[in-house]
Amino acid sequence: MAEAYKYEYFNVTFPAEYVAHVEINRPEKLNAFIEQMWLNLSAIFTRLSHDPNVRSIVITGAGDRAFTAGLDVQAASQSSLTQNAEDPARTATTLRRHILEFQNCISAIEKCEKPVIAVLHGTSYGLALDLSLACDIRLCASTTRFSIKEVDIGLAADIGTLQRLPKAVASFSWVKDVCLSARIFGAEEANQVGLVSRVYGSKAEAMQEGLKLAGTIASKSPVAVQGTKEVLNYSRDRSVEEGLRYTAVWNAAMLQTKDMKDAMLSGLQKTTPKFSKL
Amino acid sequence: MAEAYKYEYFNVTFPAEYVAHVEINRPEKLNAFIEQMWLNLSAIFTRLSHDPNVRSIVITGAGDRAFTAGLDVQAASQSSLTQNAEDPARTATTLRRHILEFQNCISAIEKCEKPVIAVLHGTSYGLALDLSLACDIRLCASTTRFSIKEVDIGLAADIGTLQRLPKAVASFSWVKDVCLSARIFGAEEANQVGLVSRVYGSKAEAMQEGLKLAGTIASKSPVAVQGTKEVLNYSRDRSVEEGLRYTAVWNAAMLQTKDMKDAMLSGLQKTTPKFSKL
Amino acid sequence: MAEAYKYEYFNVTFPAEYVAHVEINRPEKLNAFIEQMWLNLSAIFTRLSHDPNVRSIVITGAGDRAFTAGLDVQAASQSSLTQNAEDPARTATTLRRHILEFQNCISAIEKCEKPVIAVLHGTSYGLALDLSLACDIRLCASTTRFSIKEVDIGLAADIGTLQRLPKAVASFSWVKDVCLSARIFGAEEANQVGLVSRVYGSKAEAMQEGLKLAGTIASKSPVAVQGTKEVLNYSRDRSVEEGLRYTAVWNAAMLQTKDMKDAMLSGLQKTTPKFSKL
Amino acid sequence: MAEAYKYEYFNVTFPAEYVAHVEINRPEKLNAFIEQMWLNLSAIFTRLSHDPNVRSIVITGAGDRAFTAGLDVQAASQSSLTQNAEDPARTATTLRRHILEFQNCISAIEKCEKPVIAVLHGTSYGLALDLSLACDIRLCASTTRFSIKEVDIGLAADIGTLQRLPKAVASFSWVKDVCLSARIFGAEEANQVGLVSRVYGSKAEAMQEGLKLAGTIASKSPVAVQGTKEVLNYSRDRSVEEGLRYTAVWNAAMLQTKDMKDAMLSGLQKTTPKFSKL
Amino acid sequence: MAEAYKYEYFNVTFPAEYVAHVEINRPEKLNAFIEQMWLNLSAIFTRLSHDPNVRSIVITGAGDRAFTAGLDVQAASQSSLTQNAEDPARTATTLRRHILEFQNCISAIEKCEKPVIAVLHGTSYGLALDLSLACDIRLCASTTRFSIKEVDIGLAADIGTLQRLPKAVASFSWVKDVCLSARIFGAEEANQVGLVSRVYGSKAEAMQEGLKLAGTIASKSPVAVQGTKEVLNYSRDRSVEEGLRYTAVWNAAMLQTKDMKDAMLSGLQKTTPKFSKL
Amino acid sequence: MAEAYKYEYFNVTFPAEYVAHVEINRPEKLNAFIEQMWLNLSAIFTRLSHDPNVRSIVITGAGDRAFTAGLDVQAASQSSLTQNAEDPARTATTLRRHILEFQNCISAIEKCEKPVIAVLHGTSYGLALDLSLACDIRLCASTTRFSIKEVDIGLAADIGTLQRLPKAVASFSWVKDVCLSARIFGAEEANQVGLVSRVYGSKAEAMQEGLKLAGTIASKSPVAVQGTKEVLNYSRDRSVEEGLRYTAVWNAAMLQTKDMKDAMLSGLQKTTPKFSKL
Repeated sequence: MAEAYKYEYFNVTFPAEYVAHVEINRPEKLNAFIEQMWLNLSAIFTRLSHDPNVRSIVITGAGDRAFTAGLDVQAASQSSLTQNAEDPARTATTLRRHILEFQNCISAIEKCEKPVIAVLHGTSYGLALDLSLACDIRLCASTTRFSIKEVDIGLAADIGTLQRLPKAVASFSWVKDVCLSARIFGAEEANQVGLVSRVYGSKAEAMQEGLKLAGTIASKSPVAVQGTKEVLNYSRDRSVEEGLRYTAVWNAAMLQTKDMKDAMLSGLQKTTPKFSKL
Repeated sequence: MAEAYKYEYFNVTFPAEYVAHVEINRPEKLNAFIEQMWLNLSAIFTRLSHDPNVRSIVITGAGDRAFTAGLDVQAASQSSLTQNAEDPARTATTLRRHILEFQNCISAIEKCEKPVIAVLHGTSYGLALDLSLACDIRLCASTTRFSIKEVDIGLAADIGTLQRLPKAVASFSWVKDVCLSARIFGAEEANQVGLVSRVYGSKAEAMQEGLKLAGTIASKSPVAVQGTKEVLNYSRDRSVEEGLRYTAVWNAAMLQTKDMKDAMLSGLQKTTPKFSKL
Repeated sequence: MAEAYKYEYFNVTFPAEYVAHVEINRPEKLNAFIEQMWLNLSAIFTRLSHDPNVRSIVITGAGDRAFTAGLDVQAASQSSLTQNAEDPARTATTLRRHILEFQNCISAIEKCEKPVIAVLHGTSYGLALDLSLACDIRLCASTTRFSIKEVDIGLAADIGTLQRLPKAVASFSWVKDVCLSARIFGAEEANQVGLVSRVYGSKAEAMQEGLKLAGTIASKSPVAVQGTKEVLNYSRDRSVEEGLRYTAVWNAAMLQTKDMKDAMLSGLQKTTPKFSKL
Repeated sequence: MAEAYKYEYFNVTFPAEYVAHVEINRPEKLNAFIEQMWLNLSAIFTRLSHDPNVRSIVITGAGDRAFTAGLDVQAASQSSLTQNAEDPARTATTLRRHILEFQNCISAIEKCEKPVIAVLHGTSYGLALDLSLACDIRLCASTTRFSIKEVDIGLAADIGTLQRLPKAVASFSWVKDVCLSARIFGAEEANQVGLVSRVYGSKAEAMQEGLKLAGTIASKSPVAVQGTKEVLNYSRDRSVEEGLRYTAVWNAAMLQTKDMKDAMLSGLQKTTPKFSKL
Repeated sequence: MAEAYKYEYFNVTFPAEYVAHVEINRPEKLNAFIEQMWLNLSAIFTRLSHDPNVRSIVITGAGDRAFTAGLDVQAASQSSLTQNAEDPARTATTLRRHILEFQNCISAIEKCEKPVIAVLHGTSYGLALDLSLACDIRLCASTTRFSIKEVDIGLAADIGTLQRLPKAVASFSWVKDVCLSARIFGAEEANQVGLVSRVYGSKAEAMQEGLKLAGTIASKSPVAVQGTKEVLNYSRDRSVEEGLRYTAVWNAAMLQTKDMKDAMLSGLQKTTPKFSKL
Repeated sequence: MAEAYKYEYFNVTFPAEYVAHVEINRPEKLNAFIEQMWLNLSAIFTRLSHDPNVRSIVITGAGDRAFTAGLDVQAASQSSLTQNAEDPARTATTLRRHILEFQNCISAIEKCEKPVIAVLHGTSYGLALDLSLACDIRLCASTTRFSIKEVDIGLAADIGTLQRLPKAVASFSWVKDVCLSARIFGAEEANQVGLVSRVYGSKAEAMQEGLKLAGTIASKSPVAVQGTKEVLNYSRDRSVEEGLRYTAVWNAAMLQTKDMKDAMLSGLQKTTPKFSKL
């Protein structure tokens, strides 16, 4: 199965039944992203989304130093995008197309039908936030240093952090503090505001717990789990009333699954249910 | 007055002026819900909503063991809804109508014009969350064990938890963790993420404090209190701009109340104001 | 420059390059607001919004006792608005126009293109919340006593607190608790729910840190900083998808700034960049 | 079956298989509505909505003179609602509850899962528009005289006309003309702007054609027909993107109907398909 | 009264009780707009909005040749806005502020609480559409030549035509045809698609009928008329459900007007009601 | 250039400068669609969207008999999608993914940045409506027979007709009539309700006029034309206020184009402007 997921800068492995592990793999550059990488990231998650052998996913960064240091600024500064044409309107058109494509690549994680757990450690700047905020659950090692770095290089973040962060954490005042100052903050602070839901002593421990949680989720009915992800994301962005209506239509089909009977029976019999592929 | 509120599985009492107490009363089954119960719950709160003798409401579960263990799964599994017809589209129609009706019953608490305080204790699973998230304020005893149980029985929750939880607490990562893993969590964790606003040592203490808070709210102008509930719920689901516009139209009538003069005068004279019924 | 900002009840000074300081100055009345004051507040922030010499703003209250005690209730009670005409519909029209105008004055802070840091201390009631919630970052002294006072004078708050608070803090249960009970809460509680992002020992210390943060923000690219404020506020009120699309169009122009090159170069050279006025 | 639908002011009959005919029956008062009537109207359509023996509905007015002259103003003027209490805020609360209940009664037609065809004739004022705009298809006799009468009795229409008319017809300028002037307009004008989709020479002819159309619709797959009504109403009120997403989830269940095979087979064999009840 | 409305390029007169007439008055330049004109237009309509002596408004263009030929392109091309700075991001900021201000000036007509009737004739290009689409009712002389001219000068219209036209007329295909081709179309075509609600033989006749309609509207209850305008505009932009809820809150105050009794009584007594100022 | 656009069932040609012509080419099957065709359609329009040599597009159907008869029902009925698995929830997941992909293919026309003109003739059923409603302008030959055929094969249309039709034409009553009855209607009726904006005597004439209109549009500034399409589609789906704000940000970049100067100069000099590629 893994052959289908060969990419230069990503290791995709399957450490347990129904669990995929995606590792960002450019450690010599602190896992900084070049364009090819986000295109590949999107391809991987689009494929995992419909892969019946996968029910939950963990994403990590290779090496000890960084989840990712963000965009590879040096590479970006040599891109043709910054070679402005004489007409700012035409340059704007090129830039808009580019930003929308980049956004779509990161949003592929959110659109992936299976839950995705980000396990962060070390340097986690810029794109590290965009990317992990598109994941469902965020865990981190105590060594993690976060920064929403974009204002320090002269731009407003445009790949998702400014959209998803205010809906992910406790305090809008804190959101503006870290987005406007670009200051570095640590794992404990991230935990207190709810950016991550747990902090572990080391990268190894965080990964182990991340994989354990992925295993737990993978053991549940995929109909139930994938419906829960879909409905939570849908409802975050809409009124309670809209969310309820959509869920009713969704479950009108999904409650017809035989997983419900299997799950209830297993509950009574204290056995482990086996659910069909989805 | 209480005669109007006689139901087999609910005790409705009036422990103080303008305060109603609704007790879920099926303790021998851990207050698990059968269909009749949610229909009655809706009837009770629809009636309390317009009852001029009521200004705030406390909801609790009878017995020491549970607020509610959720849906009575055994009863549900015998329901005709799970006797699928041969045509999945027709089954879906029946299920959709059923889910929408069930949702409306729980939403009757949110639509009730008076503030509702949920006091939770012991087992508080599944429907316990749907129900208490439709309340305005959540308090709990230190014994409370919460779980968003639905994925464990093979479905995505569809009666309100997945819609209201992301807008009620601090961390979207935590929301997905507990919704996708169905793990049990305790009172302290609920407090830290803001699901409840206070934890008390025992059910008795939590109830006493819940009733005290209900009494405080009932002593205020009902025009002010009910407007505050309405506007907060409206604004949660819409942009700040939409919220402001609606509030301006709302208060164009409500600022004409004589409660304002009474309240200000009482404030100056250090007396307790008496407000007309609403 | 300061001459342009002369107002009876506000001191506007410029304590550092690109930093403005707006002080509410009616300390003998605990900085309580009369109509002239909110009209002036709006004029000040509308002007600061486009002033190229300003990149960040701190707002504080004069004196030791209060940020502001809120609306000057005595003055309000003598206003012609409370002299009801015989026709409640015509009175409602007058009131609606008045509320909308008052809302617009407070929203002028949110619409101001530059980040605004509120530093609160002492009595911070009613309008103190409306006003500081329209700011971007809230800091406070440990002495601060907050209260959403409106239900105590017989009305639902209508100038912004009920719209912005549920989107600014961690817990909807806590929001309803403090809005419905009008109880006083302190700096620590405000910090725990995320209403403020830091608490300092004294007003002096809080102000010093507020100005320091304002200075940090003012040292960044104004294109990046103002884009970040705009996009965060836009995205708070809309779906992630809507936020992403708007940001792509916004940045299609903004990424053409030369600030990006200057910022990157300064980063490499460890120098302090100088950005053109905006 | 008809016994279940006995109401003083409505005749409910079943002129053809799967077709219901609801006749407003107070001809001596030009079918003007008193409160009991809109409560009954709601009860009838709520019941028809889930009645498996009904697939389409025609609504008409008894007698030669009027579909309905609208609200029975004389009865309304004696209602307790107009006996204002001394407190305009409390009166407003009573009025708001009343308006919402009245709106819900009329919206019961729109929420009815089966298509409803209004056949108008003669005097069709005020509520005639509110009511028929909640229907799916409007036909009329050439004798029909329409008027959005509300401004002539001192109020803005509040039961649905002002919400649904701008989304139902061709010209917003025309909508404002007839709503602000309350002028009477005829069948031809209604046809030109698209308010009705066809005009017939007489009430009898219009009714006959209305029943024929109802018969045609009743002969189709109820899964297809009711899905079409639901999706059109949902999409009218939302963006194309939202509409598409909802429809995909809806049809994920509905395309599993065996009606599709039956319909296709009948199409090939030139036979009349028989669809199961829904 | 008229003294308050003195402007160089507008004649504001009061041809009948409660009726205002605003005439664009720069006929030697085909009533083309320079910046001062749209600022004045906004000032006029903002003032008329709250002027108790005005209940309906007619807007026309002076001279025989044009309602308005649109933006004075020559003046615009000399504006400092087109003197691009070296930084496209800073230029964009200036342009955005400018467009938003210009939009607000035109939207002042839509936000004016009183109905506005546009009577068009002759050349009606570009801004003529933006402006008249912000009006409530559009009438025109048979001589009117319309064009959505903007693509011919290299831009997408940004002052309101592209927002309001699709919601004002019959055919989205026609909207795109005229917006993308910038072709000139006549009064009959405008009438057929519903852009105008009536065509008259001459400017004089159109004006006479416009004033007559304004008089009719001005004779009605201003509570009813202004509520109708507000609710129609609100509902155009939102779902039917949102519109109904807002209207219920609006009318909770407005149905308390004594205009209702006066209007009903006058109806019965066949007299002309006199309504208090608003 | 044309080599890049080689597809079995589509002819893509470039009949004039900047004009592309896409011909559906399966005339022996009345241009009925099989899956490969909508995948190719999407690929073509996605490519045309960014192709700098194309500024407007015409889409037609090959042969005399049909624009398209819709979905190839025979092929569809043999698809694996209709081989239902034993679990309706898993079948629903497969169907939902399939519908969303199909919708995205058709929406690629709407998302294409260049205006698309559909020229219809002959049989134009089902998918013919979905497809042409995603185009910007619809023209047709007098021979065209339209039908929204889906209810006749037992389903609610789910590829766009039910979303876009209510926002494209004059009468919601007419929309429901044709969607619920699946009746065939002709070119004149389509013209009267605004579904098409013009009818021509023959397919040849319609195509000639379609190409002429495409040529006119292609001669304008592509910055202006593509901005107009984008803003019209955006605004159709949102409130006027949201539309205005987005347009202001859009034009902040786009008004910096040199096309404006070129267009104005050409206007004054009566020359034909040449605009750079976009």
